[in-house]
Amino acid sequence: MAFSSHVASRLEEQAIELPSWAFGNSGTRFRVFGTPGTPRDPFEKISDAAQVHKFTGLSPSVALHIPWDKVDDYAVLRRHAEDEGVALGTINSNTFQDEDYKLGSLAHRDDRIRRKAIDHHLECIDIMDATGSRDLKIWLADGTNYAGQDDMRGRQDRMAEALQEIYDRIGEHQRLVLEYKIFEPAFYHMDVPDWGTSYAQVAALGDRATVCLDTGHHAPSTNIEFIVMQLLRLGKLGSFDFNSRNYADDDLIVGAADPFQLFRILVEVLRGGGYGKDGDTAFMLDQCHNIEDKIPGQIRSVLNVQEMTARALLVDREALTAAQVEGDVLKANGILMDAFYTDVRPDLAAWREERGLPADPMKAFADSGYLAQIAADRVGGVQAGWGA
Amino acid sequence: MAFSSHVASRLEEQAIELPSWAFGNSGTRFRVFGTPGTPRDPFEKISDAAQVHKFTGLSPSVALHIPWDKVDDYAVLRRHAEDEGVALGTINSNTFQDEDYKLGSLAHRDDRIRRKAIDHHLECIDIMDATGSRDLKIWLADGTNYAGQDDMRGRQDRMAEALQEIYDRIGEHQRLVLEYKIFEPAFYHMDVPDWGTSYAQVAALGDRATVCLDTGHHAPSTNIEFIVMQLLRLGKLGSFDFNSRNYADDDLIVGAADPFQLFRILVEVLRGGGYGKDGDTAFMLDQCHNIEDKIPGQIRSVLNVQEMTARALLVDREALTAAQVEGDVLKANGILMDAFYTDVRPDLAAWREERGLPADPMKAFADSGYLAQIAADRVGGVQAGWGA
Amino acid sequence: MAFSSHVASRLEEQAIELPSWAFGNSGTRFRVFGTPGTPRDPFEKISDAAQVHKFTGLSPSVALHIPWDKVDDYAVLRRHAEDEGVALGTINSNTFQDEDYKLGSLAHRDDRIRRKAIDHHLECIDIMDATGSRDLKIWLADGTNYAGQDDMRGRQDRMAEALQEIYDRIGEHQRLVLEYKIFEPAFYHMDVPDWGTSYAQVAALGDRATVCLDTGHHAPSTNIEFIVMQLLRLGKLGSFDFNSRNYADDDLIVGAADPFQLFRILVEVLRGGGYGKDGDTAFMLDQCHNIEDKIPGQIRSVLNVQEMTARALLVDREALTAAQVEGDVLKANGILMDAFYTDVRPDLAAWREERGLPADPMKAFADSGYLAQIAADRVGGVQAGWGA
Amino acid sequence: MAFSSHVASRLEEQAIELPSWAFGNSGTRFRVFGTPGTPRDPFEKISDAAQVHKFTGLSPSVALHIPWDKVDDYAVLRRHAEDEGVALGTINSNTFQDEDYKLGSLAHRDDRIRRKAIDHHLECIDIMDATGSRDLKIWLADGTNYAGQDDMRGRQDRMAEALQEIYDRIGEHQRLVLEYKIFEPAFYHMDVPDWGTSYAQVAALGDRATVCLDTGHHAPSTNIEFIVMQLLRLGKLGSFDFNSRNYADDDLIVGAADPFQLFRILVEVLRGGGYGKDGDTAFMLDQCHNIEDKIPGQIRSVLNVQEMTARALLVDREALTAAQVEGDVLKANGILMDAFYTDVRPDLAAWREERGLPADPMKAFADSGYLAQIAADRVGGVQAGWGA
Repeated sequence: MAFSSHVASRLEEQAIELPSWAFGNSGTRFRVFGTPGTPRDPFEKISDAAQVHKFTGLSPSVALHIPWDKVDDYAVLRRHAEDEGVALGTINSNTFQDEDYKLGSLAHRDDRIRRKAIDHHLECIDIMDATGSRDLKIWLADGTNYAGQDDMRGRQDRMAEALQEIYDRIGEHQRLVLEYKIFEPAFYHMDVPDWGTSYAQVAALGDRATVCLDTGHHAPSTNIEFIVMQLLRLGKLGSFDFNSRNYADDDLIVGAADPFQLFRILVEVLRGGGYGKDGDTAFMLDQCHNIEDKIPGQIRSVLNVQEMTARALLVDREALTAAQVEGDVLKANGILMDAFYTDVRPDLAAWREERGLPADPMKAFADSGYLAQIAADRVGGVQAGWGA
Repeated sequence: MAFSSHVASRLEEQAIELPSWAFGNSGTRFRVFGTPGTPRDPFEKISDAAQVHKFTGLSPSVALHIPWDKVDDYAVLRRHAEDEGVALGTINSNTFQDEDYKLGSLAHRDDRIRRKAIDHHLECIDIMDATGSRDLKIWLADGTNYAGQDDMRGRQDRMAEALQEIYDRIGEHQRLVLEYKIFEPAFYHMDVPDWGTSYAQVAALGDRATVCLDTGHHAPSTNIEFIVMQLLRLGKLGSFDFNSRNYADDDLIVGAADPFQLFRILVEVLRGGGYGKDGDTAFMLDQCHNIEDKIPGQIRSVLNVQEMTARALLVDREALTAAQVEGDVLKANGILMDAFYTDVRPDLAAWREERGLPADPMKAFADSGYLAQIAADRVGGVQAGWGA
Repeated sequence: MAFSSHVASRLEEQAIELPSWAFGNSGTRFRVFGTPGTPRDPFEKISDAAQVHKFTGLSPSVALHIPWDKVDDYAVLRRHAEDEGVALGTINSNTFQDEDYKLGSLAHRDDRIRRKAIDHHLECIDIMDATGSRDLKIWLADGTNYAGQDDMRGRQDRMAEALQEIYDRIGEHQRLVLEYKIFEPAFYHMDVPDWGTSYAQVAALGDRATVCLDTGHHAPSTNIEFIVMQLLRLGKLGSFDFNSRNYADDDLIVGAADPFQLFRILVEVLRGGGYGKDGDTAFMLDQCHNIEDKIPGQIRSVLNVQEMTARALLVDREALTAAQVEGDVLKANGILMDAFYTDVRPDLAAWREERGLPADPMKAFADSGYLAQIAADRVGGVQAGWGA
Repeated sequence: MAFSSHVASRLEEQAIELPSWAFGNSGTRFRVFGTPGTPRDPFEKISDAAQVHKFTGLSPSVALHIPWDKVDDYAVLRRHAEDEGVALGTINSNTFQDEDYKLGSLAHRDDRIRRKAIDHHLECIDIMDATGSRDLKIWLADGTNYAGQDDMRGRQDRMAEALQEIYDRIGEHQRLVLEYKIFEPAFYHMDVPDWGTSYAQVAALGDRATVCLDTGHHAPSTNIEFIVMQLLRLGKLGSFDFNSRNYADDDLIVGAADPFQLFRILVEVLRGGGYGKDGDTAFMLDQCHNIEDKIPGQIRSVLNVQEMTARALLVDREALTAAQVEGDVLKANGILMDAFYTDVRPDLAAWREERGLPADPMKAFADSGYLAQIAADRVGGVQAGWGA
């Protein structure tokens, strides 16, 4: 077997944005372990991210996190990225690390703190203008730890008002993307805990406001591909934060915990017009390589997404529909599983070679000596992390 | 302490609808156990339900389930209810027990089956006209058990179209209430699995379409009172199906598994204007008394709701807001807990006696001899159940 | 690629017992849907089960459920099975469908009911003697729905005593296998809710008492393969009840919900000496084909187990250990994933043909016309089900 | 009503150990927020802990965490504690913050690292000898993030061997207490994930090895009081780490998330002989006051445990047993609920005053000015935290 030209060409549409912070150190509240060669600044993070694109051809852009990736001159950072062969992508705001935000940011009761949080987002939009970014991604750590701690309704209303002010400043070709998360860091309620809340909020804002679905941000046993279907149906699936989980927001390598779930998600993305040229749903990673090497971790991740996309493209849609029309449960399920169980790795290796990419990106990167090089070069300074 | 006149009078606004099916037998897939005296028809169910109202003053209406409660002449049933001191309430449709519905009803691919399911709902509206019911409650068992079994998107679109046809037939003073449920009887996906889906569907229908929140229909660790707050904020909390759960849709007595959760839910209902004369959110029970006596089980249930409502009414809202403004987490939480920990039972006993009700409804009902009477009287015939 | 002779020969060790009840009707508390041709008695169930073995070579025995499969003369049933090419296997007791067992069986407070439940198990052992069965599998529905309903400690002690009496009657070459389940049909507590309880109970009984692990009986996010590892380490993994789940005890086709989980489980079975000739852990299915065809559902199931076993056999254990010793997280994980992503289906088809089996058992069975034949033949009578 | 002398005297048996680390800063991986006056060393932590005992009479000892609480001379620390009116209690080891422990400690493949981890525990025992502590509490962060990363079985065996060496060094009047946790910081498997594993490990060690049950370390929907019952039945419930949770290991104030669960747990502790003079199950807190004041947070916590203990003591055990014998589900549950719904706060206030304690410890502490004092005094230095 070899990929049909249809599959081969659709695979060319794929682009998976990398998070700059995946190249810095991360960990749990118990410990953040370091690794030799970890970047010390946004420039080094982008250089590392560019390696992933160089070996896979899959990740042409890098998302920034403000203030972690603040620099004096974004034009310089942009040129650095371009020199490395990648573009600057989504700007992620951060309102969870300043002492002022202990009890919230956009939903805070205090006008001064809310103002500060709104201003931070306006600054992020200025940065977007400088970097040429399309998307402002907002994930709010806002919430409470104890019942009664604050008034959930008042917080929701204040957040809506604050989002409106931010949305009004977004440019015509820019988007506001609102992420949801069931818990952490707040442990009683989050102000945007589920897709319904994110949807209700962005629907009130306007067309350029959409939802970000992080695959690790749901309650146990949630059917995530259903949400993908629904948000695409409602025209509101702005972007994915891909990662995987066994328990909570584990932020493991996408596809590592449940590859079949990733497959089902991609089947719905294709089905619903969210893939590549069909739509404008952005693919991003959002992961923490707490114990594994970071650059290979990211390479493994984009390859996992690509492999599952290839499998999803192999689904015989015509036969599937026929079996569904018949009501033949086992046959319909079997057709889907056939695609999932197909080993696409040899074909993907060939596909890569045809495009001047290494057949085995993991091995090629390992052979490149890059990790040893940065371990030797990056001596002194402070390794980048979440700054928590 | 005694209730303030404010609390006492607000408690008078409370009405909790009972489900006729709670008086019939229910169980699990493993076994439905019977009880002597179980009703054999809708008339006997209503007589039993009327006992709950007689001893508590809390449950002036009874919901019907069609076809379980089909009768030849609804005027006769209505008079029977009135004679017993209660009214007929919400009509619940049922599209999960006919062989045709094995793979779905309103979302089914087959036009004939979808037509049949729509017609069933139109018949329910006819019954509503005869019974004087306001609400048509739709809980759909529709879904799939295996990935690929059917096209989730197509099902969603077909369901939307079918709901529209049903909604268009609803009278001006009637409402369509759409319930959601995460799983069971379908085990891969449900077509209305979460509040977001129910909200998106009813928002598309119009003002008289709202959401029904069943407290047992969520993923583990879902913050239900947040959803209550959000739906009230969006003007779409049509009704509650109260019950409690430790694991899945256990359908236990409301307040039995987590009384503090019930308290928090009622605090949000009051806060959001969903209680009594403030709004039009209907309170209903939806429970299964698999092993306990049914009528006392229902009495216990409405008392639990009343007791928690009383506690929620005791929250010192002014002090709470002040503590929230201060950002004093422990004080704010403490004010809420003060209300929860207050033992309202003596005051409620007094409140009841002032209104000609027994101080202890559980004991008064037990002393009435009703259970022994129906066990003796209801001999022969087939005990009512779910007809599964 | 073709299977090494090692893999090919190890695959020959596989035997997966089928549950007689999978061939009868099953469903949820909402509805049990029927299918044309459903068996009406244990003989027809065994005939259907024999079809699975005929087309796959994987399922040489059939488990019985007492009283569902009670017959006058077990020797006749045994000969019928042998004529059909299969053996009678595990005997499953049932103490959850008699009115007496409403509040429990082996853990019940009432001596009479406990006696009755013990006697039922002694009768099961008599049947085992007649059928030549090795294993008595005990799954207890015992538990409570409400806190305080009964004394959990007293129940545990009574159950221990009852199990001891049953164990003492087990023959020298027989085993008692105790299954655990987190919930359903009891919704507050189950008397054997987790592997720890089952382990503590069987460890107190003796060597011939072991644990049955049903893959659908755990809390969400439980790492099941860890339990497999631990029970094998403790010498107490008596048997598996295979099925799959997305939510609760969904009883879907094994491998359908999370194929990678099934793979990981089989990797641990192989690693821990629980496979084939290495040990005496029995493989069984325990599933409900609520909406799909039953015989093809069972064929699909045993094939799923076989396919995952083949993948698990392909793990390069030497390379894996080397990567683990190095502490190379990504490499070690990659080696495991390589086996999982290998498409073993062509090799399995060849393996089957070499052994006189159809290359594609699903297709071969469909072509056989058996389903149409039984639908035509089995007219009249009452279709078998759970008798709930 | 007033407490019977039985209840009053049983309440005097209560002692709840405080964790020194609850007085330092804690947070999530996103942020650790500071508070003015946070201790800078073990001495200041103990002074703060002593405040809790001073105002409540409930917490006569403080647990230490090594190396966080390492000092040059433990005799000096011990005298400091005694001067402040408290004793030094449990010693908690820590093998999760050294770079060497990135892939494990007692379960690590590398002999050197395992040796280091064992030696750390032996050092902890030396400290116990100096502090007069009875219990060595071991919580292992050991586990893996990815399937295949390491061999779970080998890890279990190595851990068993390491624990044996540690156990062998424990003094005759000392105990080893092994804690379990389902996940975090490891996200694929933990080496001691559940009570069953902890039980199997400590049972193999000997009589002075027991299990520590942290109320926040279970899978969603786990019935924790069942585990309490079972471990007491097996004679292995060494200690509690109390806290509460809505989602994962949230480490909220005990009783804050689900007060009824805390009540049920305490009912089982009393029932099973684990309370006060009846047994030797130690009560400890293990919480993180991420956003609320720490000392009042601890006061609130011990009061919550005391209030629920009082309610549990009020259960009419005789009437409860009678209702259970009758099989009257609703009556038995009602008797339990009666105790839970009783407002014990006035009686507890009186109980305190009779014993020379403030009737309202929260208010008395707030009025004491201690928080303002430490905020003024503790200037400079580094606030204590987890050192992550």
